[in-house]
Amino acid sequence: MGRKKRDMGRAAAVRRARNTERWSDEADVIVLGFGAAGASVAIEAACNDADVLLLERFSGGGGTSALSTGQIYLGGGTPIQQKCGFEDSPDEMYAYLIASCGPGEDEAKIRLFCDESVEHFHWLVEQGVPFKESFYGDGSYTPTDDCLSYSGSELAHPYREIARPAPRGHTVQQDGIEAGAMLMNRLVAATESAGVRIQLDTLCETLILDDDNRVVGVVAKCEREERCYRALGGVVLCTGGFINNPQMVRRHAPWLARCRYRLATDGDDGRGIRMGMGAGGDAIRMDAGSVVLPFTVPKILIKGILVNRRGMRFIQEDLYQTTVGEAALLREGGEVFLIVDEETFERPFAPTEIAAVGETVAELESELGFPAGSLQNTVATYNEHALRGQDPIFNKAPDYVTPLVHPPFAALDFTAENAWYSVFTLGGLHTLPTGQVLTPDEEPIQGLYAAGRTTSGLAAQGYSSGLSIADGTFFGRKAGRHAALAAAAIRRQQR
Amino acid sequence: MGRKKRDMGRAAAVRRARNTERWSDEADVIVLGFGAAGASVAIEAACNDADVLLLERFSGGGGTSALSTGQIYLGGGTPIQQKCGFEDSPDEMYAYLIASCGPGEDEAKIRLFCDESVEHFHWLVEQGVPFKESFYGDGSYTPTDDCLSYSGSELAHPYREIARPAPRGHTVQQDGIEAGAMLMNRLVAATESAGVRIQLDTLCETLILDDDNRVVGVVAKCEREERCYRALGGVVLCTGGFINNPQMVRRHAPWLARCRYRLATDGDDGRGIRMGMGAGGDAIRMDAGSVVLPFTVPKILIKGILVNRRGMRFIQEDLYQTTVGEAALLREGGEVFLIVDEETFERPFAPTEIAAVGETVAELESELGFPAGSLQNTVATYNEHALRGQDPIFNKAPDYVTPLVHPPFAALDFTAENAWYSVFTLGGLHTLPTGQVLTPDEEPIQGLYAAGRTTSGLAAQGYSSGLSIADGTFFGRKAGRHAALAAAAIRRQQR
Repeated sequence: MGRKKRDMGRAAAVRRARNTERWSDEADVIVLGFGAAGASVAIEAACNDADVLLLERFSGGGGTSALSTGQIYLGGGTPIQQKCGFEDSPDEMYAYLIASCGPGEDEAKIRLFCDESVEHFHWLVEQGVPFKESFYGDGSYTPTDDCLSYSGSELAHPYREIARPAPRGHTVQQDGIEAGAMLMNRLVAATESAGVRIQLDTLCETLILDDDNRVVGVVAKCEREERCYRALGGVVLCTGGFINNPQMVRRHAPWLARCRYRLATDGDDGRGIRMGMGAGGDAIRMDAGSVVLPFTVPKILIKGILVNRRGMRFIQEDLYQTTVGEAALLREGGEVFLIVDEETFERPFAPTEIAAVGETVAELESELGFPAGSLQNTVATYNEHALRGQDPIFNKAPDYVTPLVHPPFAALDFTAENAWYSVFTLGGLHTLPTGQVLTPDEEPIQGLYAAGRTTSGLAAQGYSSGLSIADGTFFGRKAGRHAALAAAAIRRQQR
Repeated sequence: MGRKKRDMGRAAAVRRARNTERWSDEADVIVLGFGAAGASVAIEAACNDADVLLLERFSGGGGTSALSTGQIYLGGGTPIQQKCGFEDSPDEMYAYLIASCGPGEDEAKIRLFCDESVEHFHWLVEQGVPFKESFYGDGSYTPTDDCLSYSGSELAHPYREIARPAPRGHTVQQDGIEAGAMLMNRLVAATESAGVRIQLDTLCETLILDDDNRVVGVVAKCEREERCYRALGGVVLCTGGFINNPQMVRRHAPWLARCRYRLATDGDDGRGIRMGMGAGGDAIRMDAGSVVLPFTVPKILIKGILVNRRGMRFIQEDLYQTTVGEAALLREGGEVFLIVDEETFERPFAPTEIAAVGETVAELESELGFPAGSLQNTVATYNEHALRGQDPIFNKAPDYVTPLVHPPFAALDFTAENAWYSVFTLGGLHTLPTGQVLTPDEEPIQGLYAAGRTTSGLAAQGYSSGLSIADGTFFGRKAGRHAALAAAAIRRQQR
């Protein structure tokens, strides 16, 4: 509205190497995008003796990662988990992720991710990323510089029965919202130190293929001029997701379009996904999104009950805020309210309106326009069990179960149009654990890699915070290494 | 399990025309697949003076359309609607489809489809497809040779308030399950009469592109030999959906994998979608599926209440069986039960087990292992309103609202693993109303068309029965016409 429709480019319209008259530059590995994924690809490729060229559309590194809360999902027994007294193992982490990310989860990726998570922690520390040896609590956001928190549904039913809970959200040591910027500050510095050639203000446009459909380069715009860059080992797409491409959202994940807040930069226009598809790549789980509904800060609000427009509960309120957000948006059509009483109310962290207040639940129900008796029935049932500290219907943890009996009662508005739903896309290119992009026939495309939100995430549902930076950096490293080794092999052949 | 893993082919691995040494045959328009969509494409192309070659993998025409119930979603005031005394208009039909198929629905396609639906009815009749001037009732299946039925949620809340309800399911005149076969019998005959060259036992493998990425032909296997077929105007992909490709289902729509019944042939292996993607096409709404849960036959069962494992209702039971099936599978994890009493029970049409029986609701609840009080509470609330013929919570139509008070009570098992959920995929290639396949940049691919379940359907959710054959034949005709005119234009240029 009033905002100029941005040109999303013809990213899928690949070029042919035989039509390329002049190459502006060449490298063993070309990385597109300078967020956490791109930096990790570049560092690892450079450490495997590759000459790496990194192209970034903006005037500095950071991307959407720098806007994040700087939380990284790591576990299996990291030094910080150990110091803080939490037991964890790759198998427990695997059990949790398989249960929460399915169905359709990528088992091979999750296995590798869990088995090598501790090693990945050490790698991040080696790059200069600071973590404090401290436990904060839970959530995706730490206002302090503390590290560990439960950033998923580990403590909630049914996951607490499936895998031994452990906090796995590792937030970079920096106060509050600056943690993401600190992460990228250090990864950018490490990329520079690794000898990566970084070219900013360069917008990638489309891939260049040879006649065997191998990806051999990329077309990018720099200083208003179209330039061609040749890649020997491969091009790695790390340009983020597509939440800021309204056409793509409408085509693939229309339910996300209703949310007002996006964790994204203008770079999240699906360019990398379209470039990859143009080169023959398959994009999968394109309907998936991370939907943060941060109604659980402060935690006392978890003692309230979430209801839909029928006055009915639909989920255990202590599930992680992304799982609740996904259920609220996708299953309940984004029409949900948090019911609290005088004793369970505190001003929510996220901007939220009070939809109704009443001296009785009946009054509240009527003010909300709910069917007569619906909310009264729900609250009465909830209270009956809550008197004994139980929630047999949804199995909310006893800590959060208390009867709602102290007037006034209030309904906080968590409808999609009014509340703070923050979203980004989780669907993208289908990749092997090596980062190689697959075709719809599940065959790797020579010379093409992707990482981060340009790929389909570890979790297409049941997202836990920190997974995105975790899989972007973890599998980014795999991609960087594979592309570097591919370049070395080609060099040997050429000799 | 015990079944040999079928080879799904390398459909996305396109060939180049310059590498094609010999063309076995050529035509103005080449149609792949001989279901309802392929037949409609071929007939319309032939009627627009094209030389048409139709390639079909099996030994006869029919495809999945022949296995269907022969129902076609048509409206806006067809002669049969009029004869049976139902008022309808393109605008009412449009209002219903926009409300039920959204969000993310393709408005341009729905508009055209509604505006020209009556014309399309006449076209089908011209092809020899018989329709009886009679009203049957509702559902996707007519055991008799009757025609009209409500095959969507037109009569249910909220749709009955949004658009004037009219039955739009037009079943071909033939008893019971043979109606789909009758439809295809007539369309196959019409295809032959139109002068289409039909080549059976020919399995398409991949597309052939020229150096400008125009689709100029197809590789197919015939008599164990790989052959190349040249197309002047275009190739039209009509090879069905992908429900019988387990890898694709897992990648794109894993929730469908749990259902035991598939409306499909072995041809629904996603071949056409992958061929189209290999040629640069975008596949959209790949998570979507039609999920038929035919618990509403006989209709008295709608007087029961559907509950999840928490003993809670989740939907108005009189919504159409595909909408209920989708909610049951996707939102409730396929864990639902129909609660009936002595007076509302009749043996269901679909094979279903009785999960529990009890002299009281409490006994039933306990036998089902539901949380104590949960089902009792739900039934008590339902009955309280039902005594007045009302369902204020879900707005089930009063005809179906009656207190459940006559023991014994029973729970019918409608869980995904045990019940008759019948599914097929609704996601596929993104096309213009002309049938042209679009790239991820929304640009048409020269020479490439698709129709039927190889494309993304009119409804990606809230499916109404008959929409699939309707959009396959309707937009199939558009594709046939466009490809024929493209061939004619090229011929003129060549002169």
